[in-house]
Amino acid sequence: MSTDPDCIFCKIAAGRIPSHKVYEDDHVFAFLDINPLSEGHTLIIPKTHAVTLDQLPADSLAACGLAVKKIAPALVKVTQCPDWNLLQNNGKLAGQVVMHVHFHLIPRREGDGLGFRWPAGKLSADRATELKTAIIEKI
Amino acid sequence: MSTDPDCIFCKIAAGRIPSHKVYEDDHVFAFLDINPLSEGHTLIIPKTHAVTLDQLPADSLAACGLAVKKIAPALVKVTQCPDWNLLQNNGKLAGQVVMHVHFHLIPRREGDGLGFRWPAGKLSADRATELKTAIIEKI
Repeated sequence: MSTDPDCIFCKIAAGRIPSHKVYEDDHVFAFLDINPLSEGHTLIIPKTHAVTLDQLPADSLAACGLAVKKIAPALVKVTQCPDWNLLQNNGKLAGQVVMHVHFHLIPRREGDGLGFRWPAGKLSADRATELKTAIIEKI
Repeated sequence: MSTDPDCIFCKIAAGRIPSHKVYEDDHVFAFLDINPLSEGHTLIIPKTHAVTLDQLPADSLAACGLAVKKIAPALVKVTQCPDWNLLQNNGKLAGQVVMHVHFHLIPRREGDGLGFRWPAGKLSADRATELKTAIIEKI
C-alpha cells in the first residue's frame, strides 16, 4: 500500500491524526468532516495514497464504493435525510483541497441551499459527434 | 440484470433511445450529456436498474468505478481540462432528475463558475461524538 508521509489524509487513515471515525476496513477509512456542508457530512478515503480517482488502484476504488453503500444508509437513518450527494473532486480547479482521493457524502435537506451549480448548456449533434469520436479514440 | 421498461436510462443503455455513446461494457454504458455543464460532460450509468447508489449491486458499482477510471483520462486529453468532478445525486432533494443511478463526470476549466456550493460549517466535538456513535450503530 502506497502512503505519503506528508499527506494529512494518510496520517488520519493511519490513526496518527485523530478524527471522528465512522468506518474502517482493510482498504478504506471514513470520518466526519469537521467543516461540514450539512450535518453528517462524511469523508471516505482509500488507505492507499493517490491524488486523483483515475490514479487509484481498482481494488481500492471498489472498496470505496462498497463503503459508500454501507455508510450512506446509516447516515440516512441517523440524519433523517433521505437524499444525499456523492462528490469527488479531482484537481484544484475542481475544488480539491487535500491531494488524496476523497469522496464527500453529503446529506441533503429541503431548502438547504447546497448542490452543484447547474447552468446547463446545449450540445449540438455535430459537436457531440466530434467529441465522442475523439474520446473513444483516447479510451 | 434488472431493468425498468419505463426508465429512459434503461432504454439508452439498451440502445433503444439514441445517445452519444463514448463507452460500453457488460455492466456500464456512458454517453455525453446533451445538456452539459461543460464541454465533455459525460454520464456513466450501470446497465442494471437501481434508483440510488446504495441499491446498486456491488459488481455494477465496481464496474462504474472502473469505467470512470478509463473515461476520465480520455476526457482530460480531449477537453484539455486537467481537473474534473465526479458527482452522483441520490434523490430529488439532492438534484437527481432521472431515477436511475448515474455518475456525472464534469470537466472543469479556470473561472467556469461551476462547482458545489460550499458554505462549510463547524462540527463541535460533542456533536461529532454523538453523530459518529449513532452512525456506527447503524452500519
